[in-house]
Parts: sequence; structure tokens; C-alpha cells
Amino acid sequence: MKYVYSFVEGNKDMKEILGGKGANLAEMTNLGLPVPQGFTITTIACQNYYESAGRIKADIVNEIILNIKKLETNTGKTFGQGKNPLLLSIRSGSPISMPGMMDTILNLGMNEEVANSLIDLTQNPKFVYDSYRRFIMMFSEVVKGFPRDIFESRLEEYKVARNVQKDIDLSAEDLQSLTKDYLKIYEALNKKPFPTDPTRQLLEAVSAVFRSWNNERAIYYRKINNIPNNLGTAVNVQEMVYGNIGTNSGSGVAFTRNPSTGENELYGEYLMNAQGEDVVAGIRTPSPIQNLQIQMPNVYQEFQIYAKRLEMHYKEMQDMEFTIENGKLYLLQTRNGKRAPKAALKIAVDMKEEGLISETEALMKLNPLDLEHILHPNFASIDKLPIAKGLAASPGAAVGNIFFSAKDVILAQNSGLSPILVRMETSPEDIEGMNHARGILTIRGGVTSHAAVVARGMGICCICGCEEIEINIDKKELYLKNGTILREGDLLSLDGNTGNVYLGELPLAENKENLELEKFLTWADSNASIKVHANADTEKDCIMAKKLGAKGIGLCRTEHMFFETNRIFSFRKMILAKTMPERVKYLNELLPFQREDFYKLFKIMTPNSVVIRYLDPPLHEFLPKNEEEKNTLAQALNISKQELEIRIDSLKEFNPMMGHRGCRLAVTYPEIAIMQTKAIMEAVILLNQENKTISPEIMIPLTSDQKEFDYVKKMIEDTANKIMTDHHVKIDYKIGTMIELPRACILADQIATTAEFFSFGTNDLTQLTYGFSRDDSPKFLKEYQNREILEIDPFKTIDQKGVGSLMKVAVEIARQERPNISLGICGEHAGDPESIAFCDEIGLDYVSCSPYRIPIARLAAAQSKIKQSQKKI
Amino acid sequence: MKYVYSFVEGNKDMKEILGGKGANLAEMTNLGLPVPQGFTITTIACQNYYESAGRIKADIVNEIILNIKKLETNTGKTFGQGKNPLLLSIRSGSPISMPGMMDTILNLGMNEEVANSLIDLTQNPKFVYDSYRRFIMMFSEVVKGFPRDIFESRLEEYKVARNVQKDIDLSAEDLQSLTKDYLKIYEALNKKPFPTDPTRQLLEAVSAVFRSWNNERAIYYRKINNIPNNLGTAVNVQEMVYGNIGTNSGSGVAFTRNPSTGENELYGEYLMNAQGEDVVAGIRTPSPIQNLQIQMPNVYQEFQIYAKRLEMHYKEMQDMEFTIENGKLYLLQTRNGKRAPKAALKIAVDMKEEGLISETEALMKLNPLDLEHILHPNFASIDKLPIAKGLAASPGAAVGNIFFSAKDVILAQNSGLSPILVRMETSPEDIEGMNHARGILTIRGGVTSHAAVVARGMGICCICGCEEIEINIDKKELYLKNGTILREGDLLSLDGNTGNVYLGELPLAENKENLELEKFLTWADSNASIKVHANADTEKDCIMAKKLGAKGIGLCRTEHMFFETNRIFSFRKMILAKTMPERVKYLNELLPFQREDFYKLFKIMTPNSVVIRYLDPPLHEFLPKNEEEKNTLAQALNISKQELEIRIDSLKEFNPMMGHRGCRLAVTYPEIAIMQTKAIMEAVILLNQENKTISPEIMIPLTSDQKEFDYVKKMIEDTANKIMTDHHVKIDYKIGTMIELPRACILADQIATTAEFFSFGTNDLTQLTYGFSRDDSPKFLKEYQNREILEIDPFKTIDQKGVGSLMKVAVEIARQERPNISLGICGEHAGDPESIAFCDEIGLDYVSCSPYRIPIARLAAAQSKIKQSQKKI
Repeated sequence: MKYVYSFVEGNKDMKEILGGKGANLAEMTNLGLPVPQGFTITTIACQNYYESAGRIKADIVNEIILNIKKLETNTGKTFGQGKNPLLLSIRSGSPISMPGMMDTILNLGMNEEVANSLIDLTQNPKFVYDSYRRFIMMFSEVVKGFPRDIFESRLEEYKVARNVQKDIDLSAEDLQSLTKDYLKIYEALNKKPFPTDPTRQLLEAVSAVFRSWNNERAIYYRKINNIPNNLGTAVNVQEMVYGNIGTNSGSGVAFTRNPSTGENELYGEYLMNAQGEDVVAGIRTPSPIQNLQIQMPNVYQEFQIYAKRLEMHYKEMQDMEFTIENGKLYLLQTRNGKRAPKAALKIAVDMKEEGLISETEALMKLNPLDLEHILHPNFASIDKLPIAKGLAASPGAAVGNIFFSAKDVILAQNSGLSPILVRMETSPEDIEGMNHARGILTIRGGVTSHAAVVARGMGICCICGCEEIEINIDKKELYLKNGTILREGDLLSLDGNTGNVYLGELPLAENKENLELEKFLTWADSNASIKVHANADTEKDCIMAKKLGAKGIGLCRTEHMFFETNRIFSFRKMILAKTMPERVKYLNELLPFQREDFYKLFKIMTPNSVVIRYLDPPLHEFLPKNEEEKNTLAQALNISKQELEIRIDSLKEFNPMMGHRGCRLAVTYPEIAIMQTKAIMEAVILLNQENKTISPEIMIPLTSDQKEFDYVKKMIEDTANKIMTDHHVKIDYKIGTMIELPRACILADQIATTAEFFSFGTNDLTQLTYGFSRDDSPKFLKEYQNREILEIDPFKTIDQKGVGSLMKVAVEIARQERPNISLGICGEHAGDPESIAFCDEIGLDYVSCSPYRIPIARLAAAQSKIKQSQKKI
Repeated sequence: MKYVYSFVEGNKDMKEILGGKGANLAEMTNLGLPVPQGFTITTIACQNYYESAGRIKADIVNEIILNIKKLETNTGKTFGQGKNPLLLSIRSGSPISMPGMMDTILNLGMNEEVANSLIDLTQNPKFVYDSYRRFIMMFSEVVKGFPRDIFESRLEEYKVARNVQKDIDLSAEDLQSLTKDYLKIYEALNKKPFPTDPTRQLLEAVSAVFRSWNNERAIYYRKINNIPNNLGTAVNVQEMVYGNIGTNSGSGVAFTRNPSTGENELYGEYLMNAQGEDVVAGIRTPSPIQNLQIQMPNVYQEFQIYAKRLEMHYKEMQDMEFTIENGKLYLLQTRNGKRAPKAALKIAVDMKEEGLISETEALMKLNPLDLEHILHPNFASIDKLPIAKGLAASPGAAVGNIFFSAKDVILAQNSGLSPILVRMETSPEDIEGMNHARGILTIRGGVTSHAAVVARGMGICCICGCEEIEINIDKKELYLKNGTILREGDLLSLDGNTGNVYLGELPLAENKENLELEKFLTWADSNASIKVHANADTEKDCIMAKKLGAKGIGLCRTEHMFFETNRIFSFRKMILAKTMPERVKYLNELLPFQREDFYKLFKIMTPNSVVIRYLDPPLHEFLPKNEEEKNTLAQALNISKQELEIRIDSLKEFNPMMGHRGCRLAVTYPEIAIMQTKAIMEAVILLNQENKTISPEIMIPLTSDQKEFDYVKKMIEDTANKIMTDHHVKIDYKIGTMIELPRACILADQIATTAEFFSFGTNDLTQLTYGFSRDDSPKFLKEYQNREILEIDPFKTIDQKGVGSLMKVAVEIARQERPNISLGICGEHAGDPESIAFCDEIGLDYVSCSPYRIPIARLAAAQSKIKQSQKKI
């Protein structure tokens, strides 16, 4: 087993054992770039360290010493001794970049003797003691864990005494004296003197890096990012080059492109006469990289060439560290640079157009979720602390006045305000108000609660489950933890990307049309196999869906149509009617509205497909909750309020999710499905009169059995046939079903004998497969994630092992029965990249998500296909 | 295709085409018994009749006429003409015995000419006109559907005019005159004269029988009994023999054994000078069959021999019809006789001991569900009409005083009354009261509601969902539909077998120990493969379970233990505690109770197995609902009632069935599972001190994932290990899980890697697979059954296609992973014979049902095994 690789032995594909930093140092070395020589101690050595109860095995020590010897030979220096002493930089580097770990020790190998040799060699005692004191401080902090500020404050004392601002203004004598002080401080804290033996220094540093793999911050980071705990970190040991050796030296960091805007220009900063840590520490203000062009034009030009070369080599924007030692440029690190979502998009598009990368490579450069930031408004800057934090339920940013009811929100919006709706939770009767709000804030509920789902569908910023806040709806007051009371109309700013709530007004960034995005998504479409449809219930939704690239409507939920002010009343009367003729009467009042709804939708969407789901939620969701509405309704029905309440009560259910809903409504109240069928058919006839047409797809929800499906299908067909006969027309339509019960998956072949299409309703399927109520589970699911029992939130990403297995079975047996059956998915998972990839793999034809998720889905669809074809190769 | 079979051509195994009656007539003919000759028109002819739009095809008519010719040859008579005319009896007979169909036309072929010939032949005009008038009436009723009472009242007029009591006391002239009247009535109703052509009479009668297959009553009967609609009925055409030809003639019915008691004795009755219909019509009082021994000793002896022969031949108690014509005995029908459950048991045991049938044959003779009637009290007689009807939720009969709260029931029982608990529905906090009630009546809820499940578990009579009744709990009043108001203490009688509710007191039958039952069930056990365990939570349950033959406890629900008066308070404080140490404090108060519970159970059950399920229901189920209890609790917790209510509210869930319950409680509140583990281990230690021991099986409910199971398993093991170490003992125990989520079925192999046993919780599994809330679905499931969308109630009998598929998968993959895993089922289905057979087939090791279902389950288990081995042959 080989535990140590010199840079010439490695390459960029060896990240797993060399870590990211080590692999790239090796790659640059082999590209012939000026990298200080060195070697990498592998992650396997780190794993071995943990297996050996925190000791570095003798053969690993030997390998390290062997590599030091090689380094001495190659550099002509001797490690920690002699006339030309070799000092080392020690840096950690794990396979996956992560914060929290011990980072860097510079100038290792230093001691009194070395210092004297270096003074002899450089005639620069100031540089030497500057390096020495830095080493002691870093070693103390990193290896021993002594607080850095003890050292920093002693440095401050010297600066005060000498009345200087900057470290570099201290004299050589000051720094020598400071070094002595540091050694004393170390000895006092450690009860033993500072180690002078360079090899001991080295081995202690290596152990410290290994130990830092398991410090609290690193463990926490790995946990929240699902990084395995057993990877381990590598350690890079490298010859020191000195940016602090004089005014002809310096250190800097730079990107090959602008990470904020994506512009194709060098972007970065540097400090002369400084070591790398000074650039980021902010003790002096660095200069922008462009200044180097004037200050050291040759170095700048050389750097530019290296930067381009690295970008072309890695086909990715690079983030580099460099040091200039006496006018000579060294590269200390390169890695793929982090960038803002908008920059990432521009860079991907530019690189493709520059011919640097292919279309598929460009498509793989963006995380689909980053498109959210591009699509939604964001704060230009955030200059205050949040007053509360909830769940980031729907992205974007909103600034507005708070209101505590849907009705008040509508009034406020009509009078020109920007309302933010604040509720304990929302319910379907709040829909109209939600549509008028700039943002939504709820106290209860998870990222899949009603508020969250609806807000995402509408593209409105939403924060859910913000339990730090309390509200009193009746008093129209909001209570902050610190005792502050906010009242109706007060200003809040919501950040739907983070879940942060801010008091008052934050500035919103401008949101311009993004031509790059359109180009990029066109590439995505031509590289994807699974299609993207939209969930859309209104004209507004449909227009947005079309604009964002939906190929059809995969889910039009008809229930939302009944909540509008002029309809809900008839609908309520229908629900509470005692006889079928009464119900039919009230449904006839609703028919013109429903017909008009469909007509408008069809007109926008033709010739694309529109899938209409029949009434799904339990009827009691539509009934009034407040006293005033109850009174009005009782009067209209000519019954006492008490009787009304008894009737409302009799519709209540213990577990409404599994109650009288879905096609169970169509079975028990056929007149509802019949009215909806009439509305659809008559809407098509209206459209025909304008010489347009469409083939509507009728979707029956919550099917559990073929017989049940057939029962409802027949009543739809009978109604459609009658209308077609009456109007002497032939309308092309399909009848299919949601697959959202475990039983429907198991019996999908039987259902497919008569159902012409399926759409997986994975929200409900997840609830039932797991027995997790979506509304109630956030409380305990959080604890499940904390305890690492659940790796993913199954309401966010499809649980492939459980829910996914059922889907797979359903797809297989349904296609056996009806090979050309159209298979889709609608609901939350359809906008989640990982879930989209799964749907693509099991062979669904389309995903249908809320309009604002369409760009994400389009990109995810392309990436899934690209990954699959890469796997095949 | 052959449509008609003469009796010599058929046999008892041809029921499907000859119908039950026809097949048995053929069988008797071939046994050489005195059966009037004839033939059977097959069910296929009936099916053909419907396929031919209600016409009898020509080739079928020809076959019928051919068989009439044969009959003429064999009898030496001519059909409906000549000196020795042949008259016929026409009787329907479908493959499955069912009421509602047209039954019988006697004396067919009669007309004026035939009447005269018969008078010449018999010199008995009274007999002839008696036969003639009967024929006209039956033909009018059966073929034409004219109301029988028009004819009956004319007969009455004659009897009044002649001042006689009985039909037979009318003179020949009266009967001749009556016949003429009948012909006139027929003509007036029919607008056409009575048909005189015998062949036309016959074909009209055959068509009428065919038509009667689809009359409303027959359709309804088939629907509620799941009999396919396409079977069709056969028609039996048979030479008339005349019980009404004189005092040396007669008709009767008899059973080979007593159908009420099972005694091995002829049981039946007969009427001299009568046709068969008179015996059942009740116009004269028939004599008991034993009288025939004196009246016609030879005929009686002959009949006795035939009866024994038929019973031995069919190996089954027979129900026979016979006619004596001028001293000669004819058998007209034999079939397996219906009998009371207690008689069925005695007959099965007797026949086996007489050597008539084998042990397995005896076991197949009883419907397992009939054992309920044997085990539970029943009414001796029912002499009034029910005042309301609900669902027969738990069998047995109860007479008692009504009370409207659990508390009042307990008080009433303590003061010597027999209380009946009347509630809208019950909840877990009513358990103690339910246990003190004689019977339970609820207004809402189905046969799988809380009240029903608990009552069955306790063996208490229960009627659920009795929506015809309204109650006001506060006023303690019960309102009948007719306006009657009942008050606390008033008497009601409940019949849990039928769901009927009676006002006042009905007499209860005596319930003696049944030695036959014990013998019978011992045979069952030795013929069964799947074992029967009990669901039992209390000492009382365990004693009953053991007495009824349970081989162990398959489900001990620990939650019921916390509802007792002296515990619920600590438990509530625990639930509402804000910190873990507080919760631990209150749990420590409960530990001694729980330990004592387990100790008592273990002591009764050792050495049999006891499976203990950890706390399962959502915690809010335990919280107080009434104001008084809330006040007490708030005081104890030292918080305001308002705060208490807020805390209670915060525990409420939208869909509690899928909420924070099952092992989710153990994950989030480990201290509860730890307390329960302590209680179990310490109980075993107590038992050990008495030199007894047991290996408890700990069952984790609602597992969805192996990681989740392992998390809880580890906390149990850690606790157990600590106790074992502290007490220096080694306790043998197992940890397994309920499989009640679809996901758990799909991932059963993974779960089986660490779970040592499984018990299928098919109640919840059915809820989730179907998405049917058990509490909410009865409303729409009833409509589903009415519309024939659902064939079975999936909460009563396992849905094999859906839920069963998941179970099968789970069994297969779990056994692959852990071949010796113990697999069982607990819950309602475990007491349903059809479901038990399914569990046996898929290879479960045991079913665990409520104590009172154990005998049923034992028999069902045996029958399943017997059927399987029969299939294999």
C-alpha cells in the first residue's frame, strides 16, 4: 500500500485518495506550471490513522521521511537545518471540499537555527522573524488548539507601542522580540517548550490535520451535506515560497471569470509583501488583480496565460491561489470556482459558444435548483439580521405590509398596497387571497403544507412553519420572540430562499429578462427525453406555464375553481343539499363558470394537451369556517344555523386524507362528475366554433380498483356521448387516472386495461406508502433527519426504495397491458431534479410541475438523459 | 348440446347444469329409491333462453317433447289426455339454493277432458277438482303473476257458505264450482281463456321458471350473497303423485336428525289427504312425523330406511319431501338440511363418532362463524319487532339498562344493574366502562370502529352505526324514530348477531358448557397447520384466551393499560411535560403498574409466548376531553387551563392515523420505550424468583424502515443489557415488528435482517393500501358495495389482490433473508375465516385474534389446511 504520492506521481482524477487540492497540485505540476514541489499524504493514511487509534503507523512515517529526502534532493535545500533550509507548507485537502477542517500551517521546519541560516541567506531578518512568528501562531492554533487571539493581541500591543498601523511596519527587532514572546506564550500554555525538531513539527501537524477531519464543525457539515464520514482527508506537504520576503513579493487569489456576473475577465486581488493568509484576513486592503498589470506586467501576463490554460484544461472556471517570490510567480492551488447562479448560467452559455465545451457539457454545469434564484426576485443586499427563521418553502424575496386574512390581503392589494399574508396555516379557501399576496408567512406547516405547495405553484415567495413567531388572528397582531408586537400594515421582508424574516424593508434586486436562460433551456429540451408539463388551474398559470416552456398542462385541479367568491356559495349549497335534484340545481349554477374556465384554458393551450383532474378534496374543505359566512349560508338554505352546523359536523372526518374524496365523490355524487364532463365537452364545442380544437384528457383521482375506475368512466362516457349526439359533433377525448394509492400501483395492469393514461400522484403515494401524514409529519420527520434515520425528506425527493419500487412495478405491468399508455407524474416531486431523474429512468413520458419549476425540470430532464447516456458508454 | 336429462341420466354431481333439486332427484332415482319419474331441463337451457331474448329455442322444445314421450312410455300414461292421463309437477331448481324464485306448479296438464278421465279412473271427483283448482291458482300466480289472494278469498267464500273450517271439508260439487269460478277469474284478468293445451301449459310454465331467475327478489338475494347472475335455473318436470287422493294419501317433510338440537332422530311433519304445499301453508296443523309410525307403520318404517340410506349416501343430514299416494311412499326431494349452529356441531361430532364421516369431514361440516352463536348468549325467543337496526358489530345478546357515559356504566354495574353503554361512538378513554357493560350501542361507526373492535375483543355484544336512533348525551336521552324518548336506566335488548335493537326485555337462552365443542376444536387443532394466538391486554383476557385454546398472546396492546383510573393521570402529565427529565419522572410513576401488568400476564401465559407491542396510538388520544378533567390536570401541572388547552391543541393532528404514533413515539420520546423495556425485564425477574420464566417478544409498531427499527431496537437492547447486568441475570427475549405500512412490506427483507419476528397489522395496512380511513370509510364503502364496485369489505376480509399481494411479497423476501423468521398476523382479519385461509396459504405461522374469535380461528385454520390438502390430491 502506497500512502504518499509526490506531485509528479498524481493527477486530477485521483481526488479520492489525494483530495481535491492534492490532485490539482499534481495536475498542475504535470502541466508544467510553476508549482512549488511537494507531495501528498493520502486519505488512506488518514483512514489508517483512525483505524490505528490515532497514531501514524511507522511505515507511513517512513514514507513521509523518504519523500522529504526526495524534496531535499530536488530543491537542493535541507529540511529544517543547514545553510539553505527547506521550510514547508502543510495543507489539508479532502476529496470533497468542506469548511471546518484545519487548513494551513506555513513555514514549518522553522527554529532558532533555521532562522539564523535564513538571515544569513536572505539578509532579511524582518522576513525571517515575520515567518517565524506566523509559524508559531499557526502551529499553536492548529496543532494545539490554543486561542489565536492571545497571539493576535500581543501583536497588537507591539503595533500600539510602535504607533504603526500595519504588521509590515514593525521592525525586524520587533518581530524577533514578538517571536520570543510567542515561544514563551506557547510554553506557558503547553507546559512544555515549542518543538524544535522539524520532523516532530511535521508529524504533529499531519496528525492535527487528520484529527481535524473529525472536529465538530466538520462532522456537522458532512451530516447536513450527506458526505460519508469515512472518506478522510489528505495532507499536502509543499516547499515554502515566500510572498513576504520583500516588496517584490506577494500573494493573491483570482478567478478566471467574474464569479458574480460571469463576465469573461480575470477577477481577484493580491497583496504585496504578504503571505496568503493576509489576503483574506483583511489586515490590509488588497488591490484588484488588474493593478498587477501595471505593477508587475510580466508576472500579470504570465498569470493570464496560466489562467486561460487551466480553464481550458479543466473546462471550468478556476479559482486560483498564487504567490510571487522575488518577482517569480508560483501557483499554489487551483480549483473549480464557486459562482452566483446568474454567473454560472452565463459562463456555461459563453463557454459553449466559445467552443470550449459542448452543449451537453454546458448543460451539466448548472445545478437545476440554481435556476430558482435566476427566476425569482431576490434582495439586492441584506444589511440586517433576521428577526425569525422559518422553512424556505417557496423561493424569491418579498417586501410588503402584513395582513392576517385572505380577504384583507385582497382589499389591501386593490388599494395599492403590497400585502404579505400571515396565517397559522392556509386552507383552500385562502387561495384567492394568496394569489393577491406578494409573499406568504405561516406559523405552522412544512415545506409540503398547503401554503408551500400553493405558493410554489403561484411562484410567490413563502416561508412556512415559522414557529418562532406567534400571532393572534382576531387581534391582527404578530408577536416576535423579543416581545415586539407588529400590527396589520407593518412592513416585513421575506427571503424565501433562506426562510429568513426581516423587519422593515430590504432592497429588491432588479429582475431583467434573461436571454441566456432561454438559449440554455432550448439546448436542454433538445437533449432531454422526458417532457415537462405544468400544473396550472388558471389562465394566469397557463400563460406563465407556456412562457416558461411547458409542453402541455399535466394537471389542472378543478377544485380551486370553486373557491372564487362568485362560485363558492353555489358550491356550498350543493354540498349541503339533501337530495340529488337539489344538488343538480346548484351544480347547474356552476356549470357556466366551469365551462368558461375550461374554454379559456383550452384556448391558451391548444394544440397542446390539457389533463383535467376531477374534483378531489373532501367536501368539508369547502365549507365556511367563520360565523358570518355560516349565517349567510344558513339563510340561503333556509335552515337554522344550528342545523347548518350539524350538517357541517356530519361531514367532518377523522382522517380526511383517506376519507370521502377523489373519485369516491364521483361514485357517491355522480352529478358532480357529470357536470364537470358537460363543462369540458361544451367548452370544446365553443372552441370548435372558432375553428380551433383540443383533445381534453380527463383524469379520475384516487382510483383504487379497475371496477371503480370503470364505474366513473362509464358515467363520463354516457354524458359525453349524449352531448356529442345532441350537438352532432365528435369530440376526441381520453379518460385516465391518477395513480396515488399503493393498491393502484399493485393493480396498475388491471386499471390500464381501461385507463388510457396514468399520472402518478406521488404526494399521496408517499403519504400512504410511509403512513406519513404530510401535514402532521414535519414535526417528527425533523427529528428523524437529526437522528439520521431518514436521509431524504420523502416529500421533497421520491423515496426510490419504497415509493419508487411501487411506481416501477406499476410502470412495468401497465405497459405490459397497454404498451402505448401515456405515463406522467404530477405534484411536488415533479419539480425536484433527483426525482425527475428517477422518473426518466423508469420511463415516464412526462413530469408535470408548477409553472415556476418548469425551467428547473427542463434542465433536470436534460441532465438525467445526459447522465444516462454517459453511463451507457 | 343436450338441454334435457331424464332422471336416470343424471347424478348428484351435476348440480351446475341440473340444479340442486334435479341432481338429487337423479341421484335418488339411481339409488333405486321410489321417485316419481321425470326429467330436468338444464340451466344451460335457461341461459339460452336469456341469450335468445326470452324465447325457448325450437330444439329445446323438441327435446322437452321427446322426454314427455319417454315419460308417457315409462308410466303408461298420456300427457294431458286419454283414459290414464299424465299430469306433471314443475319445479325450479338452481345450482345454489335461493329463495325468491318461482317454485312449483302441480297438476299441470289438467283441463276439462283430463278431469273427466281422472274421475272415471279414480271415481274421486273431489280429488280431481281439488287438483284442478290448485293447478289454476298456481298457474295464475306463477305464470301470469295474478295475485293469489283473489283466488284464496273465493275459496274462503265457499268455506263460509258451507260453514266448514278446512278445504277438505268442501264437497266435490263445491270444488267443481270453485274450479269454474277460477277459470272465469283467470279469463277476466287475462282477457283470454285459460290454456287447455297441455304442451302450451308446460312451455308457459317452463318460461315462467326461467323468467323468475331474474325477478327482483332473486336478483337482490344473489347480490347480497355474491351469487353470479349468469348461472341460470334448471326446471324439473316430474310425474304427479297425489297426496290429496284420499285419507290413505298424504304429504310431508322430514329431517334425518333434529335440526334444532342435532339429536339423531327423524324430525318432521305430515298431513294426510294433502298436497305438499298444504304442509307448509299452515291451513291445517300437520302431525309430527312420529305419528306416522302409528298411522301407517309400514310406510314409516320404509321412510326410516330411506332416510338412513340417504344420510349415509350423502354423509349429511337430509331434508326430505315425500308423498304417500294410496299407501305408497314416494320421495319428491332430498337435500342437505339447514340446522341451528348448535345442532350442526352435535351432528358433526355424532356422525364422526358413529363412523359415518371422518374427522376431517366432520371439521368441514361447520361454518366457523357459526361458532359465534354457540359461544355467545342468544335470545331464547324474539316475540317483538325491532325498534331500530344497526350494524351487527359484535355477536351475542344483551339485556340491560341504558347509560350514556362510561362512568355511569361503571357506577351502575357496581350497584348491581346490567348496564348497556350508549354513545355516539367510543374512544379509548371509554375502555374501562365498556368492560363493565353488558352491551354497547353506538350511533356512528362501522363494524371496524373502535367500539366494534374493542367489544369483539371483550366478547361483549355490540351494535354500531345505529343511525336511526338519535341521542343527547348531556340530557341523557335517546330518541327513537317514532318519537319515543328513552331515559337513563330504561331497558333495551340488543341482538349483536343481527344488529336489531328491541325495546324492553327479551328472554336470554341458557348457555351451558359445550363438551362437543371442546372435542371438535381438539380435532381442529390436530388438523391445522397455522397456529392460533390471542390479542389480550388484561389478566381477564388472558384467562379467557387460554380457556378458548390460544397457544400464546400474539398481541398485547400496552396503551390500554394506561387508561385505568389510577394511571391515566400520570400518563397525561407525562404527555404534557415540557422536558425529558419531567417525562421520565412521570414515567417512573407508571413503571410499577406496567411491571405488575406484565408480571401477571407472564404468570398466566408461561410457558407460551407473549408478544408485547410498545405504545402505538397518537398521544392526544389520551388527553382529557371534558372540562372537569382538564381543570384537575391544569392544577396538577400548575398551569392555567388556557395554557393546557393550547398544549392539547398543539398535539392535534389532521390525519392522526398517519401521524405521530407507533415507533415514531419511541424515536422522539425514547424514555417511553425505555420505561416499557424496564417493566418487561423487571417482570421477568420477578417471575424468575418464583422459578418460572418466559421469553418476552417485544414488538415495535409502525416500522417504515430498517434504520428506524434498528434505532429503537438499540435503545431497547441497551436498556435490557443494563438491567441484566445490574441484576446479574440473563433474560431471553426477542425484538420484532409489526408490518403495517406498505413500505414495510416492500422493504421486509431489509427489516428482517435485524427484526426477529413480524406480525402483519392488516388493519392499518388495509387503510394505507386502499387509502381508506377505517373510521371515515363506512359511509362510502356501503355505497361501493351497493354499486357492486367492492365485492368484500376489505376491513372484514383481507383484500387478497391488493393488501394480500403486499403481504405475499413481504413473506417471500423476509424468509429469503431470515428463513426461520416467525410470521403472524394480529388484528381484525385474524378472526375472519377467509382471511385465515389466505394467511395459511401464504405460509404465516400464526394468527392472533381476540379471545372470542379463537374457536372460529381454530376451525378456520383446520378447514384451510384440509382444503389445501384436498386441492393437492
